[in-house]
Amino acid sequence: MFRFLTAGESHGPGLTVIVEGIPAGLNLNKEYLSRDMARRMQGHGRGGRMKIETDEPIIRSGVRHGLTMGSPISILIDNRDFANGNGPDGTPWQQAMSIGPSENPGAPITHLRPGHADTPGVVKYLQDDARNILERSSARESAARVAAGSIAKRFLEEFQIEIHGHVQAIGGVHAPSSNKPDWNTVETSVVRCADGETSARMVEAIDKARDDGDSLGGIVEVVATGLPIGLGSHIQWDRKLTTKLAGAVMSMNAVKGVEFGAGFPQADLPGSSVHDVIKPVSEWGSESKGPWEQPYQRNTNNSGGLEGGMTTGEPLVVRAAVKPIATIINGLPTVDLRDGQFVDRAHFERSDITFVPTCSVIAEAMVAIVLAEAMLEKFGGDHISETKRNLQTYRSSYANTRLP
Amino acid sequence: MFRFLTAGESHGPGLTVIVEGIPAGLNLNKEYLSRDMARRMQGHGRGGRMKIETDEPIIRSGVRHGLTMGSPISILIDNRDFANGNGPDGTPWQQAMSIGPSENPGAPITHLRPGHADTPGVVKYLQDDARNILERSSARESAARVAAGSIAKRFLEEFQIEIHGHVQAIGGVHAPSSNKPDWNTVETSVVRCADGETSARMVEAIDKARDDGDSLGGIVEVVATGLPIGLGSHIQWDRKLTTKLAGAVMSMNAVKGVEFGAGFPQADLPGSSVHDVIKPVSEWGSESKGPWEQPYQRNTNNSGGLEGGMTTGEPLVVRAAVKPIATIINGLPTVDLRDGQFVDRAHFERSDITFVPTCSVIAEAMVAIVLAEAMLEKFGGDHISETKRNLQTYRSSYANTRLP
Amino acid sequence: MFRFLTAGESHGPGLTVIVEGIPAGLNLNKEYLSRDMARRMQGHGRGGRMKIETDEPIIRSGVRHGLTMGSPISILIDNRDFANGNGPDGTPWQQAMSIGPSENPGAPITHLRPGHADTPGVVKYLQDDARNILERSSARESAARVAAGSIAKRFLEEFQIEIHGHVQAIGGVHAPSSNKPDWNTVETSVVRCADGETSARMVEAIDKARDDGDSLGGIVEVVATGLPIGLGSHIQWDRKLTTKLAGAVMSMNAVKGVEFGAGFPQADLPGSSVHDVIKPVSEWGSESKGPWEQPYQRNTNNSGGLEGGMTTGEPLVVRAAVKPIATIINGLPTVDLRDGQFVDRAHFERSDITFVPTCSVIAEAMVAIVLAEAMLEKFGGDHISETKRNLQTYRSSYANTRLP
Amino acid sequence: MFRFLTAGESHGPGLTVIVEGIPAGLNLNKEYLSRDMARRMQGHGRGGRMKIETDEPIIRSGVRHGLTMGSPISILIDNRDFANGNGPDGTPWQQAMSIGPSENPGAPITHLRPGHADTPGVVKYLQDDARNILERSSARESAARVAAGSIAKRFLEEFQIEIHGHVQAIGGVHAPSSNKPDWNTVETSVVRCADGETSARMVEAIDKARDDGDSLGGIVEVVATGLPIGLGSHIQWDRKLTTKLAGAVMSMNAVKGVEFGAGFPQADLPGSSVHDVIKPVSEWGSESKGPWEQPYQRNTNNSGGLEGGMTTGEPLVVRAAVKPIATIINGLPTVDLRDGQFVDRAHFERSDITFVPTCSVIAEAMVAIVLAEAMLEKFGGDHISETKRNLQTYRSSYANTRLP
Repeated sequence: MFRFLTAGESHGPGLTVIVEGIPAGLNLNKEYLSRDMARRMQGHGRGGRMKIETDEPIIRSGVRHGLTMGSPISILIDNRDFANGNGPDGTPWQQAMSIGPSENPGAPITHLRPGHADTPGVVKYLQDDARNILERSSARESAARVAAGSIAKRFLEEFQIEIHGHVQAIGGVHAPSSNKPDWNTVETSVVRCADGETSARMVEAIDKARDDGDSLGGIVEVVATGLPIGLGSHIQWDRKLTTKLAGAVMSMNAVKGVEFGAGFPQADLPGSSVHDVIKPVSEWGSESKGPWEQPYQRNTNNSGGLEGGMTTGEPLVVRAAVKPIATIINGLPTVDLRDGQFVDRAHFERSDITFVPTCSVIAEAMVAIVLAEAMLEKFGGDHISETKRNLQTYRSSYANTRLP
Repeated sequence: MFRFLTAGESHGPGLTVIVEGIPAGLNLNKEYLSRDMARRMQGHGRGGRMKIETDEPIIRSGVRHGLTMGSPISILIDNRDFANGNGPDGTPWQQAMSIGPSENPGAPITHLRPGHADTPGVVKYLQDDARNILERSSARESAARVAAGSIAKRFLEEFQIEIHGHVQAIGGVHAPSSNKPDWNTVETSVVRCADGETSARMVEAIDKARDDGDSLGGIVEVVATGLPIGLGSHIQWDRKLTTKLAGAVMSMNAVKGVEFGAGFPQADLPGSSVHDVIKPVSEWGSESKGPWEQPYQRNTNNSGGLEGGMTTGEPLVVRAAVKPIATIINGLPTVDLRDGQFVDRAHFERSDITFVPTCSVIAEAMVAIVLAEAMLEKFGGDHISETKRNLQTYRSSYANTRLP
Repeated sequence: MFRFLTAGESHGPGLTVIVEGIPAGLNLNKEYLSRDMARRMQGHGRGGRMKIETDEPIIRSGVRHGLTMGSPISILIDNRDFANGNGPDGTPWQQAMSIGPSENPGAPITHLRPGHADTPGVVKYLQDDARNILERSSARESAARVAAGSIAKRFLEEFQIEIHGHVQAIGGVHAPSSNKPDWNTVETSVVRCADGETSARMVEAIDKARDDGDSLGGIVEVVATGLPIGLGSHIQWDRKLTTKLAGAVMSMNAVKGVEFGAGFPQADLPGSSVHDVIKPVSEWGSESKGPWEQPYQRNTNNSGGLEGGMTTGEPLVVRAAVKPIATIINGLPTVDLRDGQFVDRAHFERSDITFVPTCSVIAEAMVAIVLAEAMLEKFGGDHISETKRNLQTYRSSYANTRLP
Repeated sequence: MFRFLTAGESHGPGLTVIVEGIPAGLNLNKEYLSRDMARRMQGHGRGGRMKIETDEPIIRSGVRHGLTMGSPISILIDNRDFANGNGPDGTPWQQAMSIGPSENPGAPITHLRPGHADTPGVVKYLQDDARNILERSSARESAARVAAGSIAKRFLEEFQIEIHGHVQAIGGVHAPSSNKPDWNTVETSVVRCADGETSARMVEAIDKARDDGDSLGGIVEVVATGLPIGLGSHIQWDRKLTTKLAGAVMSMNAVKGVEFGAGFPQADLPGSSVHDVIKPVSEWGSESKGPWEQPYQRNTNNSGGLEGGMTTGEPLVVRAAVKPIATIINGLPTVDLRDGQFVDRAHFERSDITFVPTCSVIAEAMVAIVLAEAMLEKFGGDHISETKRNLQTYRSSYANTRLP
């Protein structure tokens, strides 16, 4: 059983994450996590914060001498702002966000931002300062998820499972579709787009939005390869891998849509054009992974690697629609929570123009977390060698069941 | 804590569902459930089965003298086919699906259907007969979900929460978009579409697909009204209502995409065009529900009634993309699971041309289940009057916190 | 993930149970379950009901041709009383417990029984008839647990794990303690006691209690053998096998205490007398299971087979204290729920003098359920052969880690 | 939904705990938590560590200006040993327990301690150094639980629910039983015993055990008062408060038995002597809490405040049997994990003679956690005022249902 919890506000002392259920014997170190933390922070369109924050994940438990012990892994990520920075009204964050009583608490935020958690949050939690909501609902929390997801990715690497995220669209600028994005290009693109020309146009769109005092959304895609057939299950609604993946990806800030494989457009097509024909053994080329290890291969992958809530062995492909950021320089009209009266501009506080590139990294993390959990549920194991051995014998058992 | 489990195969003795967590004192009877069971079975494009099956939900526990007792509610839905029908090879279902050993087990299904759970299922569960997978992965299971969802809807009615599903597209025929679908029209349309002219064109598309031996998918939408502000939470990824709704809706058979409110298209727009401006008190018309009961109202609903993973008080709007049915009369080429060799047509067994109208009813059920759980988590209560009272005082507390 | 839910009232139509998570390929049939159902119904001191009820478990899903399919297993156990019997006031159960409105609902129960769920139940669920509580809180529900536990036992048998329950005390009559109860004697004893002479004295005590219009409690013990080392975990409070076992056993009706191994008395002893010394390889006799398969053996088993919340490989030994039945012929003084006024005798309705022998069978079921879940968590697997193979390689890996 | 996770090893950088689900608006500060942290560290019989460690709980999130915000609360408790101390072989803990590779990892622990998690742990997690197990299985982890439990107690205080733990026995020295322990005496006793004379004899027993190089166990009891009727539920095995309490208390290190109210001895008595007669309204004295607020009162409390898995409104009384500590100065004979050969003394590392007094504080925490969860499940609420209001109206509704 894999589980994780995150804690921490955006401008408080820092984030905390506990990840539980990773087997013993896995190589894990701060440098590995730091790579993903850094990838999360990049991207054209990120605000000033990215320059001051250099996220350093401090592993605090669960790892000894570079190897996991099977015990819960806790990670701290400090908010550097807290020590030195000031809030939008000039109040030092140490005061504005102090855990104990503060002589200088700062002004409450009452000009509710449409599109943010502010409004339902203050009602639900009965708050008169939207900061008590927005500090937690902020996308800053995603740093903790990326740390957890990085551990999951490290685990999945042991099984040759790879997970990559990239950007397909920003602000209406769409990349040409591709079955095989070049991941090296993605990693060097300032917008994490696999197409160089599109990258340039995305940058332009972002710059224009900045000039307009506006924000942009977009579409990100995650591709996971190397998965065995049969993760997830068809037997109950909440055991389907589709259920878990859709929930995990939709749980990301600003995501309003999730789709697999051919996605929404396949709803318009007849079945004969959609379903992925299975390739007979006789057509397997030399690139195939041995006759039985992956016993079913497809000509297409409209399913996004999922049939009946289970992995098909083809690449898992999931996309998310990211709405534009709710915090806008030229804030929208709204009301004041104190009296419900008209306010011409919602609260603004340092923000990004777009964080779609970052979303592709967060989405990697969420997909990795779901897949790690699914691997452990199917294969069990308390030491990484045990889980690997169980996968290996499962793979080889395909052969025995198929041969006469 | 609301939870439910379903059990049952498509052609076995029947379905079983246990629903737990509904407070005591709720009016519930077979007739109420039967209405939803019947709605699930209708729809142009459904196959022959719909004519022989008349689903009768037998309440077996949890209800006494027409009122729930707080104890688990179990419901049986028999498969009438089991008693009298024969399988595609002529074997009586009582033999083909007998719980005990059978002298006439019927021929195994080995021509794997692309797009169905067959292929990953036989690998995962190590089966040599795809029937052992498809009997459970069949959409027949949705009858059990609709029964569970109907209980959830009955519960939500007590709070004036209403849930309606309709069809927006079938086979590429799209209805004009509408903020306020006419639910009476939907209930009388043979394709559960709110627009009469579109209904006719959808029927045509279905008839053509039948002639082609093909199948169709489409798009369904569910709208829930009357929700209080603040169901769900922003504080952890798996507590967001968006997480739970996305998972629940994506868990439906054939669903490959889920989106809220303005959905995928909003990813192309700037923030200033997307976020739902809050209407000041001075602009509230006479239709408003009293000055404080619903303290924040919007001019638009692009968010689909969800901000920060919480309900905004506006209608909840969720859409699902349904892929065309995987079982096709003119089956696709595939392989035989016994030897991996080419087969020109995948297995066919009585099926629908499309079940998109049905999906709109199943989606209602899944949304209702998630909302019932969220209501109980926020308001608690073991008798319906307790839950109602807790909601009422929550609503009225808006006023107290807002007035000076 | 193994889970199960039960539903059903004591005198309603019947019990329903859904068991989910059992791998495919397991032999399972009604006759196997019936054996445990029958064992549950026996025992000197059971009331008249046992003569009219012959519990027949009807498997309704999840099994085909005698083998599990990996899908949820549902089982129905009808209450024969419902069809033909009358309640204590002469009302036919079909009327008194009808799901729909009844013209003859029977008299409400308002003389609350001390010791039963009646009192907290009517307050929590706001009921004016204690029958709406007691019908579910009745020990009748345990028949559903025994069915679920029987499936778990069938699963564990595949790994040579055996589970036996017996009675150690009834009404103050204690059996001599024994490390190796004779299970054949237990199965033939009318009180499920391993000692013949004690059995006779227990019967006498029960008969005397019947004459006194009173009820008796006692102590039951469950022993599970053949367990691998390392089920459960020390890493988090809720992953300990001790946590899960204690909860599961304490969840049984009337159980007020649970202990492992040397139990409460070990709290009085010094550590040097309690902890189970590990036997060096040189002292292993020929009875040992090969040099490495069970790499650590003990001289004693005061731990009850559990250290640090994990199995040690020694027999798992858990005991439960069962309070006397709350329904007594000469009912205790109490109050009437309608007015809180004195009533000289609490409600009486057909009951047993003692059901301690039955508790030993229910306790077997609860232990089996916890162990099945723990096995699946550690070893995974979706077909029984996969789980078995994973256990086997785990066992043999002991050797590799120990040899130089 | 209340949940918490702890992380951290005994001699690593420190402990981490995340507590989620506490409503907003609760007063909480470091000083409050520190009181419980300090109570945990006291007690005659604790080892040298207690002198060097002064646990300081650092709240890192979820609290702002002294009030909870509804977001996850994270707490750090550093291990002071880590910075400055050395392990049993002289290796600095910073080296022996370093997260990254270490040039001076220290000697592995291979002389397995009977009674500790060492043995099953090294097998399960495939470790060749028992330190990788014992660092997490150590009772040091209970500091994190006490922090979490302290938050739960703070929450429960708002409802006038009080929780106290005390010691009933150490090493065979038993305190006279008492229905109303004097909590002030308990807090000043060096062994947390309510009886002064017994305290003295317990100290003697501990001193003797120290002289003998041995360890002692004992019995602790927790009493919770002020609970409403109806927490927990009878409707399903895992919803009973008994299930959750038994699991939570048994999850504590070294606990081998749990019992409620009259506990194991009631198994020997007839029903007429055990069940708690309900006191009619006419006998309620002036001390009663108003005629209807607590509608059912008892003459005795053999049930320990629990009937049918629900609270009765009487004090909740739970006891735990604590086995003697497994780490003994004069270690028991054992084997070496490298070769299975005889070793005359198991590993010893700084330890306590007894930690029974501490267990009474940990048990308070575990009971508080379960009760906080049960309160939130029954009453819901996202701000403390909402939960309080819901409880209040529930209490007053007793009256309405009872009056004619």
